[in-house]
Amino acid sequence: MKQWIIVGLCCLSLNTFAQSDDSLVMRSISDEIMMHGKCYDDLRVLCKQIGHRLSGSPQAVKAVEWGQRAMEDAGADMVWLQAADVPRWVRGEEHLKFKFGKDKNYREVRVLSIGNTVGTDGKILEAPVIMVNSINEFDQLDKGLVEGKIIYFNYRFRQDLINTFEGYGDAGRYRWLSPNIASAKGAAGVIIRSVSTGVDDEPHTGSMRYADTVKPIPAVAIGNTSADMLEAKCRAGMVTAQIQSECKMYDTVRSYNVIGELKGTEHPEEIIVVGGHLDSWDVGEGAHDDGAGCVQSIEVIRALKALGIRPKHTIRAVLFMNEENGLRGGFAYGDSAKAKNEPHIIAIETDAGGFSSRGIGLDMSEDKKERIRGFRNLFLPYGVYDFEHDEGGADISPLQRMGVPVAGLMPDPQRYFDLHHTARDVFENVNHRELKIGATTLAGFVYLVDKYGLGPTAPLKDMNIGSTPYSQRKAK
Amino acid sequence: MKQWIIVGLCCLSLNTFAQSDDSLVMRSISDEIMMHGKCYDDLRVLCKQIGHRLSGSPQAVKAVEWGQRAMEDAGADMVWLQAADVPRWVRGEEHLKFKFGKDKNYREVRVLSIGNTVGTDGKILEAPVIMVNSINEFDQLDKGLVEGKIIYFNYRFRQDLINTFEGYGDAGRYRWLSPNIASAKGAAGVIIRSVSTGVDDEPHTGSMRYADTVKPIPAVAIGNTSADMLEAKCRAGMVTAQIQSECKMYDTVRSYNVIGELKGTEHPEEIIVVGGHLDSWDVGEGAHDDGAGCVQSIEVIRALKALGIRPKHTIRAVLFMNEENGLRGGFAYGDSAKAKNEPHIIAIETDAGGFSSRGIGLDMSEDKKERIRGFRNLFLPYGVYDFEHDEGGADISPLQRMGVPVAGLMPDPQRYFDLHHTARDVFENVNHRELKIGATTLAGFVYLVDKYGLGPTAPLKDMNIGSTPYSQRKAK
Repeated sequence: MKQWIIVGLCCLSLNTFAQSDDSLVMRSISDEIMMHGKCYDDLRVLCKQIGHRLSGSPQAVKAVEWGQRAMEDAGADMVWLQAADVPRWVRGEEHLKFKFGKDKNYREVRVLSIGNTVGTDGKILEAPVIMVNSINEFDQLDKGLVEGKIIYFNYRFRQDLINTFEGYGDAGRYRWLSPNIASAKGAAGVIIRSVSTGVDDEPHTGSMRYADTVKPIPAVAIGNTSADMLEAKCRAGMVTAQIQSECKMYDTVRSYNVIGELKGTEHPEEIIVVGGHLDSWDVGEGAHDDGAGCVQSIEVIRALKALGIRPKHTIRAVLFMNEENGLRGGFAYGDSAKAKNEPHIIAIETDAGGFSSRGIGLDMSEDKKERIRGFRNLFLPYGVYDFEHDEGGADISPLQRMGVPVAGLMPDPQRYFDLHHTARDVFENVNHRELKIGATTLAGFVYLVDKYGLGPTAPLKDMNIGSTPYSQRKAK
Repeated sequence: MKQWIIVGLCCLSLNTFAQSDDSLVMRSISDEIMMHGKCYDDLRVLCKQIGHRLSGSPQAVKAVEWGQRAMEDAGADMVWLQAADVPRWVRGEEHLKFKFGKDKNYREVRVLSIGNTVGTDGKILEAPVIMVNSINEFDQLDKGLVEGKIIYFNYRFRQDLINTFEGYGDAGRYRWLSPNIASAKGAAGVIIRSVSTGVDDEPHTGSMRYADTVKPIPAVAIGNTSADMLEAKCRAGMVTAQIQSECKMYDTVRSYNVIGELKGTEHPEEIIVVGGHLDSWDVGEGAHDDGAGCVQSIEVIRALKALGIRPKHTIRAVLFMNEENGLRGGFAYGDSAKAKNEPHIIAIETDAGGFSSRGIGLDMSEDKKERIRGFRNLFLPYGVYDFEHDEGGADISPLQRMGVPVAGLMPDPQRYFDLHHTARDVFENVNHRELKIGATTLAGFVYLVDKYGLGPTAPLKDMNIGSTPYSQRKAK
């Protein structure tokens, strides 16, 4: 009973006296990051000296080394690597060409194979193209018509959805599903309209996984301009395509999460995680996805340390490996936390681009959400107003399965899917102030959750996904 | 008494039954603009076929013709031009070179003269440089030390201010004031650190006006990288500068505002203005400043027309001329409205860049603000949450002086002052979705204000700035 009275008084003080002090601390965090923040410089190094860094690539090895150094430079009390065995998929050379109607010559368009797909062993796969505008339309097609053909899934990203992540969920199904459903009907290959809000010819790659029941077939994505052209040509008459690609999945490779922490002064055993993912797709520089999240997470450690804010609980910044095509780093972290029986107060992920913050998504019990919403006024000066969405992050989903409350930074979503998984996701397309405001939001959030807690912290539940720890399973 | 009961019932219905209908209309406006909007295509034409368009320039003439056509294409019931005599300032060639310490050679840096300033008639103005970090520091300098020198005002844009418009107000004083206060003490010229949040070498131009009491002296701006270099060199020892420029102010030229309107069905005599400015600085393409505002204002007309929404009051989209260096278009509009005794319900300006909307600033009586804040929930799905700031716009400030309630679209402010008044303010730096969400916000706002009104509309007061209409005065 007494405990609850104390909790009640804490809530009262939070809502009355404490907020003015907290707003000053929030301001000092903001000033520190906006004026002296290192995240933008860190991102320049990651993008320009290392570049893209798909799991299992030589650049991913360098990125791990970079992350370790950056975490040490930020002043973490302890920095370590956490092993995870990751898939190694290599793109190689790839071409897509079309022949329209009675044309004699093939015309090449820009293309990116969908990540994890098989290639053609460098040979030319040539077949007539059949266009469908939706999975529903594809389902109507006879198997006989599909067999041996290249199916073009011409599904557009819904530009009417203001939250582009809803649009991504919608159109993203085509990247995940189309190679499987096409193969199940005997298709020879798949072309998709990129999962893209862009009004350009930029192809977008991204992950897929073959179902155990289908024969893997090559699947490639084209940019919206080429997709418009292909749509018009398919309507006008016969189209033949040539897909040539060297994509291949190799054996699993040992890689690592990078972890840095500030040790808690009162409850060091209870942990707050803030993280992004260190791997990226193998085009561009992985600047927004998710270099931004990595440097922001490191900035949280640096800013708190620089301001002399010693947290009561342990703050861990985690650079997860292999979010893009396997999630092995996320599972490795979850497995380790479970094995060590580490109670986690919350995990927050930043993996939605380095844009101005607009909100923090919350996936947890209603009472914990309400405690966090009590901080709302402290975030408003930084443009953060939305605490109404259920959001977490892929890397922290294993923790979430074990009962850890999760949250996700929600930046402005308008530009993300123009750049996401493309050659244009480069440092130059990240704005220094937007990136820093994201870091400020995260640091403020960590500061407040550390100071006030979220109520009792539950021990980790079992993930219930079988006896072999997920991170040690064979990647496929 | 009866009237007030009706008003009361309207408010009640607004807060209960009507909002669900209104949210559907808002959604239809959003869908129309996000899916079929023309503003991004319009902006491409304005930026790429015409480019920058300083008042009095040949491009400004073309921009007026473009605006008229675009307004007609959008489906305005009536389109017309409104004369305004504008200054014609021409930059010509310009150079800034430095010699450091005992160096023999001069080193050239990128530079932009501040708008409206005098040049050197193409001759070289050579003088030692004295650096000051603030106006306060300058005020401490003896006149004897200043005389004949080039004063370098090394004042930085405050990156700690989250609302960059506050930072602009702060640092912008240096652009407006430094040539005047330096000349008053006998300086030969002025260099300022650009009014810029950029972490680059981009110089920013912008307006200034010589006080009647001082001798006009040349004043130029350098980018932040050059400014950092100059700061270091000034600290290290003697610096000499050469300014050479052909800037010149010519005679006033006849130009025009472009106005298009949808006639009101119930109260055509009462007017709602939505506008931006058609002129730009003479570098880049005036894409965010304020091509974005122009195409968004035209889009409001187009979207309402396309959706068959006939307004009760008259909706006017106004492309104002000469916001950048004279405000003659704004005054011409105000003079005309006063002469014709046109009651205005509200004027809203969009001149803060084509970024994602975050709020609508309101400068009006508290009761009118409260009516608008009653629409808050209708805007939240579009990321618009902030109705707490006093904002209007320069072009509508003459209307404001006559008692018209004014509002200003508040987009996300983080990137604006990286680009504002620079060669980088080009079409490529405007995002199609962000631009359209701004137009959606404006169209929704106009729809709601038209539907529910803001209470009684007052007749226009006198501007009280003398007997000659401002727009007919001689520009200086």
